[in-house]
Amino acid sequence: MKIKISVVTLGVKDFDKSLKFYRDGLRLETHNFKKGDGYVMFRMEGTWLSLFPKDELAMDATVSSKGSGFSGITLAYNVGSEGEVAEVIRLAAKAGAEITKTPQKASWGGYSGYFADPDGYLWEVAYNPFTDLA
Amino acid sequence: MKIKISVVTLGVKDFDKSLKFYRDGLRLETHNFKKGDGYVMFRMEGTWLSLFPKDELAMDATVSSKGSGFSGITLAYNVGSEGEVAEVIRLAAKAGAEITKTPQKASWGGYSGYFADPDGYLWEVAYNPFTDLA
Repeated sequence: MKIKISVVTLGVKDFDKSLKFYRDGLRLETHNFKKGDGYVMFRMEGTWLSLFPKDELAMDATVSSKGSGFSGITLAYNVGSEGEVAEVIRLAAKAGAEITKTPQKASWGGYSGYFADPDGYLWEVAYNPFTDLA
Repeated sequence: MKIKISVVTLGVKDFDKSLKFYRDGLRLETHNFKKGDGYVMFRMEGTWLSLFPKDELAMDATVSSKGSGFSGITLAYNVGSEGEVAEVIRLAAKAGAEITKTPQKASWGGYSGYFADPDGYLWEVAYNPFTDLA
């Protein structure tokens, strides 16, 4: 048994808005999604991403949905160059994301920027010259 | 350009405690980790997992570290059978996780349970007979 992350699910406040952000803005590919579905999975290399209304996600885990501020979790998308970092951040901005950190040299020696999705979930777009995760 | 999730980073309150939970309890394999490092990555199939002190993670993203309650995000580990769901949940409990939902038939037709890591981050362990993500 080797534990892995199969799916990351984001609990979203406005499902349609987040669907548009990820599908139309970031151009992610949906998997078996039909109009009217209240849940969507994006087929991705490695771990898949999914969106589900936040209240229902909490209910599924049988925990309280109350929560605010920093989620404490970031998702990183590693690319192969500094130029690609800038390109992805531009795409995210065009899709309506808030750019919380413009692309810049990072303290750990790489190059990265951050954007926040419609619910404030943070994505780091990073170029790591030491560990190839692209 | 095809966006993917390269790394999921959990901002943790007690780095040593979380390191022990994931490395020794859940038996994840660290990548280039040396004693005294304030950051750890776990090499995994698909998306990698990493741990970083919560305050420093917020600082890296240049956002406030204030936040409480439900993070809004869940990580799912999909396995191949109902029996494996129970096995992983037992391992997590032995590692000190709180089992927030004992393995059971899920509303979506599969079988799953949830555990919370030392910071309360939620993992769903799931068997999905419709979509093979194991």
